Amino acid sequence: MEELFATEKTRKILPIIKDFLVNEIYPLENAENLTGKFSKVAKVLDEKRALVKSLGLWGLQHSEEEGGLGLTLCEFGQVSELLASTPFGHYTFNCQAPDIGNMELIARYASDDIKKRFLHPLIEGKIRSCFSMTEPEFAGSNPINLGTTAVREGDEYVINGHKWFTSSADGAAFAVVMAITNPDAAPHQRASQIIVPTDTKGFTLVRNISIMGEASDHWASHAEVRYENVRVPITNLIDEEGMGFKLAQERLGPGRIHHCMRWIGIAERAFDLMCKYAASRSMGDGTVLGEKQAIQFWIAESRAEIDAARLLVLRTAQNIDNFGASAVRNQISEIKFFCAKMMLQVLDHAIQIHGAYGMTDDLLLSFWYRHERAARIYDGADEVHKSALARSILSNYGLNKKKK
Amino acid sequence: MEELFATEKTRKILPIIKDFLVNEIYPLENAENLTGKFSKVAKVLDEKRALVKSLGLWGLQHSEEEGGLGLTLCEFGQVSELLASTPFGHYTFNCQAPDIGNMELIARYASDDIKKRFLHPLIEGKIRSCFSMTEPEFAGSNPINLGTTAVREGDEYVINGHKWFTSSADGAAFAVVMAITNPDAAPHQRASQIIVPTDTKGFTLVRNISIMGEASDHWASHAEVRYENVRVPITNLIDEEGMGFKLAQERLGPGRIHHCMRWIGIAERAFDLMCKYAASRSMGDGTVLGEKQAIQFWIAESRAEIDAARLLVLRTAQNIDNFGASAVRNQISEIKFFCAKMMLQVLDHAIQIHGAYGMTDDLLLSFWYRHERAARIYDGADEVHKSALARSILSNYGLNKKKK
Amino acid sequence: MEELFATEKTRKILPIIKDFLVNEIYPLENAENLTGKFSKVAKVLDEKRALVKSLGLWGLQHSEEEGGLGLTLCEFGQVSELLASTPFGHYTFNCQAPDIGNMELIARYASDDIKKRFLHPLIEGKIRSCFSMTEPEFAGSNPINLGTTAVREGDEYVINGHKWFTSSADGAAFAVVMAITNPDAAPHQRASQIIVPTDTKGFTLVRNISIMGEASDHWASHAEVRYENVRVPITNLIDEEGMGFKLAQERLGPGRIHHCMRWIGIAERAFDLMCKYAASRSMGDGTVLGEKQAIQFWIAESRAEIDAARLLVLRTAQNIDNFGASAVRNQISEIKFFCAKMMLQVLDHAIQIHGAYGMTDDLLLSFWYRHERAARIYDGADEVHKSALARSILSNYGLNKKKK
Amino acid sequence: MEELFATEKTRKILPIIKDFLVNEIYPLENAENLTGKFSKVAKVLDEKRALVKSLGLWGLQHSEEEGGLGLTLCEFGQVSELLASTPFGHYTFNCQAPDIGNMELIARYASDDIKKRFLHPLIEGKIRSCFSMTEPEFAGSNPINLGTTAVREGDEYVINGHKWFTSSADGAAFAVVMAITNPDAAPHQRASQIIVPTDTKGFTLVRNISIMGEASDHWASHAEVRYENVRVPITNLIDEEGMGFKLAQERLGPGRIHHCMRWIGIAERAFDLMCKYAASRSMGDGTVLGEKQAIQFWIAESRAEIDAARLLVLRTAQNIDNFGASAVRNQISEIKFFCAKMMLQVLDHAIQIHGAYGMTDDLLLSFWYRHERAARIYDGADEVHKSALARSILSNYGLNKKKK
Repeated sequence: MEELFATEKTRKILPIIKDFLVNEIYPLENAENLTGKFSKVAKVLDEKRALVKSLGLWGLQHSEEEGGLGLTLCEFGQVSELLASTPFGHYTFNCQAPDIGNMELIARYASDDIKKRFLHPLIEGKIRSCFSMTEPEFAGSNPINLGTTAVREGDEYVINGHKWFTSSADGAAFAVVMAITNPDAAPHQRASQIIVPTDTKGFTLVRNISIMGEASDHWASHAEVRYENVRVPITNLIDEEGMGFKLAQERLGPGRIHHCMRWIGIAERAFDLMCKYAASRSMGDGTVLGEKQAIQFWIAESRAEIDAARLLVLRTAQNIDNFGASAVRNQISEIKFFCAKMMLQVLDHAIQIHGAYGMTDDLLLSFWYRHERAARIYDGADEVHKSALARSILSNYGLNKKKK
Repeated sequence: MEELFATEKTRKILPIIKDFLVNEIYPLENAENLTGKFSKVAKVLDEKRALVKSLGLWGLQHSEEEGGLGLTLCEFGQVSELLASTPFGHYTFNCQAPDIGNMELIARYASDDIKKRFLHPLIEGKIRSCFSMTEPEFAGSNPINLGTTAVREGDEYVINGHKWFTSSADGAAFAVVMAITNPDAAPHQRASQIIVPTDTKGFTLVRNISIMGEASDHWASHAEVRYENVRVPITNLIDEEGMGFKLAQERLGPGRIHHCMRWIGIAERAFDLMCKYAASRSMGDGTVLGEKQAIQFWIAESRAEIDAARLLVLRTAQNIDNFGASAVRNQISEIKFFCAKMMLQVLDHAIQIHGAYGMTDDLLLSFWYRHERAARIYDGADEVHKSALARSILSNYGLNKKKK
Repeated sequence: MEELFATEKTRKILPIIKDFLVNEIYPLENAENLTGKFSKVAKVLDEKRALVKSLGLWGLQHSEEEGGLGLTLCEFGQVSELLASTPFGHYTFNCQAPDIGNMELIARYASDDIKKRFLHPLIEGKIRSCFSMTEPEFAGSNPINLGTTAVREGDEYVINGHKWFTSSADGAAFAVVMAITNPDAAPHQRASQIIVPTDTKGFTLVRNISIMGEASDHWASHAEVRYENVRVPITNLIDEEGMGFKLAQERLGPGRIHHCMRWIGIAERAFDLMCKYAASRSMGDGTVLGEKQAIQFWIAESRAEIDAARLLVLRTAQNIDNFGASAVRNQISEIKFFCAKMMLQVLDHAIQIHGAYGMTDDLLLSFWYRHERAARIYDGADEVHKSALARSILSNYGLNKKKK
Repeated sequence: MEELFATEKTRKILPIIKDFLVNEIYPLENAENLTGKFSKVAKVLDEKRALVKSLGLWGLQHSEEEGGLGLTLCEFGQVSELLASTPFGHYTFNCQAPDIGNMELIARYASDDIKKRFLHPLIEGKIRSCFSMTEPEFAGSNPINLGTTAVREGDEYVINGHKWFTSSADGAAFAVVMAITNPDAAPHQRASQIIVPTDTKGFTLVRNISIMGEASDHWASHAEVRYENVRVPITNLIDEEGMGFKLAQERLGPGRIHHCMRWIGIAERAFDLMCKYAASRSMGDGTVLGEKQAIQFWIAESRAEIDAARLLVLRTAQNIDNFGASAVRNQISEIKFFCAKMMLQVLDHAIQIHGAYGMTDDLLLSFWYRHERAARIYDGADEVHKSALARSILSNYGLNKKKK
């Protein structure tokens, strides 16, 4: 716990959550659950959700009016780090991406009708959702390029398009789809976000894409989806036409805090595993692994990098709470690439310290090694964020050029 | 092809092998074959072996007397790089580890009887074998620590022990087992290498260890094995009692060339994939990915690192051919960590360049990302090699201390 | 200014100091002043000190009782960053090392008599001092090894020894000397700190060591010193006999904050220089340097690293203010190597961006490049701090071994 | 000596040169000679030249017809590495840049008259020369941008321009000046190279630029030069009008081999120094520095990197000898950034290992640290070479865009 950002609420709930995770969730981390289909373990986690509710911890990220705990972003970030110490934490607390982002979005920007039909069952954990933006034909680093269209016909949108990396689509009740509604508008005002129930005719889940050796399913799936003359009522539009890009941006401010704190949680757990192993693994000559200088360096460097990352992210979260995301856009850019790099570096050290054991699914590390390499890619590749941050800085020095 | 090390033989066979791989093997690289059990694809590869034989390319690494092509280590290294351009190359040519090492070992150090029973069917590709050295209870970086014992009783050894990372054990006809036969000898003279047919009573394949998300099977398995009162005739001993450690060392000289050239082959293919993608992926603004300076840097740096690695390894191979492995032990140490680092770095760049696509099993890269992280660990972790090399260098400056 | 740590005092004085530096000190940064002997520029700086006093900014680090501003360590850190934006800042404000450390030490641990004779003129800026610990014959990373002895004879200590890197000795009024007084005590209780006026018989400044191309002089000197039967009264002892090592440690807590904030100040100025140049340097093809992606990456990465470093250091400073240095020893270790690495990396980028111009003394950067490489060495090499931090962490995991 | 590239000549002369350097030149490496003006040590080195001549080693790089040894580029590279083991090697053997480049250029492209007046005294070591290309107003990475003009009036060129980093101008007999003669030609055909004796009216050496703390003089100077209505006969033109850029390129092929081998020589000597120190420096606890794992890693990694660099460069040199520079342009690009990075990394390790001692001018390392940081900048910054290499590679994949 970082004293600098501790609040009454975090002091109270973090220890309870920690206990819950250690006792109820960590024991589920075995090769059986860490490989293969997610639906196997989802069953057990769904049972654990009852326990979360009974502890009064359901709805961490929701306002008190919505029946949640009313945590600030900075407080939620600290909880999120803890949940991320296990691959099953966020799902168990129903604050997993992309549902958490969809809930935030709908709560702020959608009509009451939509809230009733889609938000409330999401909050209760009765359904899941997905977010359908990325397209195989277009470079992800240029989000204004979209091939998917939503053409208005009477009271309906007719949607056609091809998406992939529609995460968690398998089993989701609905998708939030990014589609071009206003092709003649300025580039950033062409797209809209529209809710499409997955049982709508013309919605096809082509496949759960096999990623890093495994297609998985359920919440842990990443789908290729086709929209072929999919018709939904125009009331399924979130906010207004042409706001799609802006909403996507809106989502990213808190979304990046979520990601970064999750990565810090992963790094902290990997750090814990490496220290445990280093302190106890006998080298067969009367010494233990942790006496090696190289191991010590990795531990020291990891400690400093994790601490630095946490301070950067919580500072940014607090600033978003206080001043809004647009006031600290540069800070939001810098945490993305800083934390992704840090987390992957710590994981790499942790694996190396464990040797061959670190390759096996008997340990958590290989799970994260496979699944979190993507941290440097999704939600804007590192390269995109670095250029964006630099251009923003350089504009203060008089440079006003578009990206090259 | 590196002109500096080209020979008449390599000039002749490399293009033929290249064609064979491109036409017969690359088409097998799909998500179906790159994930799940190896036995699925093994069937197809076994059929391709006939084609290899018909091309006169069977037995690359064997002497001409043994019906092989009589390639020098430096020549074989160049072939090996090419075979490694696909995950299925070495297996198809029957020069996959650990069989290739076992074949070399048995050919040089075992009795004629053993050769007849075990070597010949191996050479013909009728059986497979495994090498059983690593033990979960002992740090791999200190190979003289072994818990497995082989006690002589009459004409038999009675073997007891617990091994893991006995690679390719699943379906293997026999294991070469490292066991303590002379517990009272000097540390490096305690172990012996003994052939144990896997159908011997007391040999139990406990499990194929799940590694990086997948247990696999067949040649691609990594087994946990128990030896419980396993009895084999003393004639199954390779070389003499107490020579186990020396034989293991012996294996490592050429073995490291094999590994390193394989990594170079992987890096070269990853490089080819990244250049193809960079040269063609549209950024949606009239430019393509390869015009980005960061992408160019990764390509340039990768090119230099691969070239450097190849020169280091082929120089070392040629020196082993000319002067023997013990004359260039330092060179053998340095290629291990240099090449492993290079290959993983190039892979990482290649993945990043492909973005989300690079995560998927539609591409080769994620296969190598998962399976080759171990390069920095097995066969002596990087850390072990670096210290060994430095101590060897420093001993020339008067420092004669054992490792700390 | 980092909002998180801003106070009423920092909000008030930082802008004033910034203005003073920009208007009075930055104009002195030219090749003439940045090379050669420090005494040339010292004259001018001494005149600027009057201005500092007239602005009410003299004595930043002193308590209000001592006539200072009574800044906390966290507040002073923020000032220190600003002063470090120019090589001449700390000297002008009379809070340069080693004087600042000597002042802190004497203020807390020395007798009133010593304070009167040595502290007050130091505070007024009338004299300078030096700290004489490092010895050429002993590895700096093991501070309990000292060859210098102080033997008590009657009311005097007789000191003999050989020191180097006695920084600022040239022109100093006195040295604080670390010497063995209790050779038979436990290793960490053998040394004492004793004040030796530099005009004492037997004190010889052998040479100002030529470092990075220049011996310099005055405050910017690093002397080799010999103590040959130097006699001082026993009342020149600071604190008690045997406390030398503890006092040295005591000095390091705040001392490290000073160093780290100084490095952050250097990095921030280098960052400013590189952004200015990147935003304006024409490439001759209608673009400017800052449009290059590689340049953008360096700027973005530098921004993130500097921000991270500042948060780490100010958090640590605040914790020292609140809980004392011994409560956050690990944090103090981690900032040392984190900040030194960060600063040198930012400097390196800044130089590379400037090309040949970055090599010249027309720019500040080459000054820091030469003088600040030592950041990873003095005050405990990075390697020492990393091992210390790791051992401290691992001791919480049950590992209790001394350093290897 | 790398066996792979050893020839009869190198086997013969390398040991002789090594002996000469160790006995005659290394003893000159002291703080006095390593700092301050070069003219101090030049006197002594000029005397040593007589010894070089008496050993029959004068004119290493010249053809046998010119009275030289007729070394191939690959052979000369190996000698050059050895000479670079001391900062005074190349000068003593009269094969220092920029004279060596000017000699090559004039020998191949200039008229007999020019050869007689300028080449012969250069070869004899009676005069020195400089190369005047870089201009402060134009980015060095775009060599076709030049402000200096040479306008033909009758039988004379009238030259006007402003140059800097005209290395070795101080005391040089003539400059080879790059100037625009054909402003209306295609960009790469506008410049010419013209010989300007430094005593010509209108040639002003404005200053020896202070670089890394020191302006130096003589051969070690880097001058700012102004050409104001400088008149030289048109016969001073080298080759033809408009060939300036092509000649500059021509110069770079072998020139890059020279630089890279020099850097390898520096790295090898730094490596030797660090091993010596690591093997002997007592840590005060019964161990020596070289037993530390971190030190061992730096030694091992440095060994591998140096070996890799040497193989890359000598392979390239041999290919230039065999096939010409234009056939291996990509190889020439890759060695530049690979070797510069390697050398600076090795130097950095060597300094860190020496601790505070490594900062002092009592050791060679700080000399190179200051003077060789420029390796990543001059002769095309790393960034320029990486992009050029990548674009060349990507053009084989169908990408044909100009640099961004």
